[in-house]
Amino acid sequence: MTTLAQIAQVIHGEVVGDGSVEITHGCEIAGGSPGGITFLANSRYADYLATSLASAVILDTETDNQGKSAIRVSNPSKGFADAMAYLYPQPTPPRGIHPTAVLGSAVIIGSEVSIGPYVVIDDGVTIGDGSVIGAHVTIGPETTMGSRVRLHPQVVLYGGGVRLGDEVVIYSGTVIGSDGFGYVTEDDVHYKIPHIGQVIIGNRVEIGANCTIDRGSIGDTIIGEGTKLDNLVHIAHNVTLGRGCLLAGGVGVAGSVVIGDYVTLAAQVGVVDHVTLGDRIVVAGKSAVRQSLEAGQVYAGDPAGLHPRWLRQRAIIKKLPELVRRIRSLERLTNPEKRGNSGGG
Amino acid sequence: MTTLAQIAQVIHGEVVGDGSVEITHGCEIAGGSPGGITFLANSRYADYLATSLASAVILDTETDNQGKSAIRVSNPSKGFADAMAYLYPQPTPPRGIHPTAVLGSAVIIGSEVSIGPYVVIDDGVTIGDGSVIGAHVTIGPETTMGSRVRLHPQVVLYGGGVRLGDEVVIYSGTVIGSDGFGYVTEDDVHYKIPHIGQVIIGNRVEIGANCTIDRGSIGDTIIGEGTKLDNLVHIAHNVTLGRGCLLAGGVGVAGSVVIGDYVTLAAQVGVVDHVTLGDRIVVAGKSAVRQSLEAGQVYAGDPAGLHPRWLRQRAIIKKLPELVRRIRSLERLTNPEKRGNSGGG
Amino acid sequence: MTTLAQIAQVIHGEVVGDGSVEITHGCEIAGGSPGGITFLANSRYADYLATSLASAVILDTETDNQGKSAIRVSNPSKGFADAMAYLYPQPTPPRGIHPTAVLGSAVIIGSEVSIGPYVVIDDGVTIGDGSVIGAHVTIGPETTMGSRVRLHPQVVLYGGGVRLGDEVVIYSGTVIGSDGFGYVTEDDVHYKIPHIGQVIIGNRVEIGANCTIDRGSIGDTIIGEGTKLDNLVHIAHNVTLGRGCLLAGGVGVAGSVVIGDYVTLAAQVGVVDHVTLGDRIVVAGKSAVRQSLEAGQVYAGDPAGLHPRWLRQRAIIKKLPELVRRIRSLERLTNPEKRGNSGGG
Repeated sequence: MTTLAQIAQVIHGEVVGDGSVEITHGCEIAGGSPGGITFLANSRYADYLATSLASAVILDTETDNQGKSAIRVSNPSKGFADAMAYLYPQPTPPRGIHPTAVLGSAVIIGSEVSIGPYVVIDDGVTIGDGSVIGAHVTIGPETTMGSRVRLHPQVVLYGGGVRLGDEVVIYSGTVIGSDGFGYVTEDDVHYKIPHIGQVIIGNRVEIGANCTIDRGSIGDTIIGEGTKLDNLVHIAHNVTLGRGCLLAGGVGVAGSVVIGDYVTLAAQVGVVDHVTLGDRIVVAGKSAVRQSLEAGQVYAGDPAGLHPRWLRQRAIIKKLPELVRRIRSLERLTNPEKRGNSGGG
Repeated sequence: MTTLAQIAQVIHGEVVGDGSVEITHGCEIAGGSPGGITFLANSRYADYLATSLASAVILDTETDNQGKSAIRVSNPSKGFADAMAYLYPQPTPPRGIHPTAVLGSAVIIGSEVSIGPYVVIDDGVTIGDGSVIGAHVTIGPETTMGSRVRLHPQVVLYGGGVRLGDEVVIYSGTVIGSDGFGYVTEDDVHYKIPHIGQVIIGNRVEIGANCTIDRGSIGDTIIGEGTKLDNLVHIAHNVTLGRGCLLAGGVGVAGSVVIGDYVTLAAQVGVVDHVTLGDRIVVAGKSAVRQSLEAGQVYAGDPAGLHPRWLRQRAIIKKLPELVRRIRSLERLTNPEKRGNSGGG
Repeated sequence: MTTLAQIAQVIHGEVVGDGSVEITHGCEIAGGSPGGITFLANSRYADYLATSLASAVILDTETDNQGKSAIRVSNPSKGFADAMAYLYPQPTPPRGIHPTAVLGSAVIIGSEVSIGPYVVIDDGVTIGDGSVIGAHVTIGPETTMGSRVRLHPQVVLYGGGVRLGDEVVIYSGTVIGSDGFGYVTEDDVHYKIPHIGQVIIGNRVEIGANCTIDRGSIGDTIIGEGTKLDNLVHIAHNVTLGRGCLLAGGVGVAGSVVIGDYVTLAAQVGVVDHVTLGDRIVVAGKSAVRQSLEAGQVYAGDPAGLHPRWLRQRAIIKKLPELVRRIRSLERLTNPEKRGNSGGG
């Protein structure tokens, strides 16, 4: 049995009301259910608190708890995430190597590792302590990975130079280290450029499901520490992604792009090859980045430009029919002969 | 041997001409081949009928059969689909559990189930009668599925709460139930929000190849009965999709979006998070839905607006160079000094 | 040990300077490293040559070698690709059938074939000489493939008619031959159209990771000889792609589209169904092709139009705020009463 007070201790918060309340699960603030703990991080949802059936709420140090048992923390979203991690510990699969796993020669496996059914690991692979390799994962020769790496079922790591840091998490269906889309064309025939570069993925990087990250052609493809990728993201050969970036679903980054630290690319953004994006840039969803972008700004549109300018353009485009009417009426005023003419524009 | 009359009986149609004609296969109306049956659903293709080598045609109750043996039905497309299902029965793989399948404990398997080679099924999974689980499928703990479900090779269902209704079909490479892209950021570090929600998929839902459908964070991700998804579609955490929707290839729906019944999203549409789309909406391909949309309308563009307005904007944008010329000539008229100036615009 | 002279012989080039220099690896021109060979194909990078630590450079017949040992060829990019293929021969996996592979009946396997662990091959499949089938590949019944085909780990070929030519390469996670997204709707119910067509893939086609290529409904889906697809590309049912095309990451081609020879679709382009694209077309990234396009031109935008026109439109859209100001000042000039009014536009 878990009490509110226990959770408060785990998330370093202060109990308001009855700390002995039993908490059995997390729930949403709208509706909610007895035994549940929820959170309030956005005043938009404050009205739901009064009628929520949740037994307790995590909120900031100032918001009215409306009589509900609560834990006060500086960041309720973070507090709730920590509470959930405590209430729902991630299942740890059985340690050891499943008898159906196929291992090559000179494979080095750390302690407390779990290798699932039908995993195929090629020669010369190194797997760090505490790593979990899910069912049907395929790992090519000479791959190395740090400690506490988690490869979900059916991930593919190509051979020849994929290097994962510590605590890297890769979701199912993702393919790391296949050849980039590089050809030399002569007389209408496309000759493949051999790819000899690596993919180097920093500590605590997380990569969603069904992504593709290509190895470099000569140089490497690099993903910085703490960067997170959503599902169906494509990173081409020789891209360098900085630390702490967030790339949402369906983003595509073309070859040799350099992206700084703490950059956010919203869903379905495309970035053309060989451009540079500075640190702490945000690009709005579905934008097309067609040239290098300076650090610290918000961009949007196709081609991606500064967000305020894009908003202004959008507003004017919406009013184009009105502009056409204004031009037509000016034409009538300046050329009386046109007054009877209803055509144009 | 199958005759035209037999097919007419199956698809509830009326034979015109010789019902004893042998039908060996389906074919296109353009060209066609002897023994083949084709269909005519669109008058655009009527001219092909005269020269088609097909032995018979399925058409509506009014169109001229141009002397060809035919079956008349109210909906020729549906009639043809039914005829094809009859002529090409889907192969049923052998019943039973392949000896290489790895099953956890407390797995409940209905009658007449087929489980292919190298399938991995974790603890507490329930599989309904008549289901077919293809090669290399991975099913996480506590997953449940109804009757006559079909999982094609290399599908991944995560554990912790994927619930499939009856007659759900999922094509290869699709990943259901991985964590959503949810992080809390503090001091430039992105902390993962634990995902404890489920993915609930209604009866007769079909999901194409290499899609990704994330589990909910607290609440659930829900896909309504009879909805169909094409390939490479991304459904984020906590999305609710209504009944009978059609989502074409490459569509991405961000977190917590609510979509009504019978909505069509054409290819590569993106929908931002936390918006609501009413029933029976159609959104044109590649549109960016950036705000909630009212029911029953057709939308297009970025940001997606009503389709007729988008058409008008497009038309004016095409004529922008002309508008610039008109403004310039107005400027010359009103300010004679500018007459010699060819610049501007 | 490999010398510069040996490489020159392989790539049919002429040594400049010391042919006995030992070459151990390929490297980039910027930086570079001793023992490395690099190339110079673009005068933009010529300045790097002076300071590059590379031991040798491949360049064209005219560019100054700045005193560095060099190989002169007509096409330095092609020369470098050939040099890399020589220096880094692709590892050939062991010949033979891994004991864990599951083979159906009437499977015909050529000579010198490699079939990896946990491969599942259904009845009636034909595999040509020298082909390599990676781990966890699933091949449906009646599939045929030519010689020297390479299927990377976890590729899925559906049954019922996938035909691969010689030297086809398919990267991991790609799904070929699943049903197209075709439904007939009657009373709000979407009935699946049975798919009986094939997927026919020509010689030397290469398909990236996590792509999806659907089989035809009645007719076939066809990919012409020498065409190359990047990652996450979607080709719908009944598409015909010509020879020597290049489709970059995230491209989606809808049903029944016909694309000519040597067409380039840049990243994230979408093509609506039933249109025709002529030979030697280039479409810029993220464009939406909404109608048929004539051969030999460059297109861009949504809807995709001729590239120069798109550039002009873009330029005017950028200046829309200025146009609004010009209209307003014309209105003031022609209607003095408005002079004090700062509103509008």
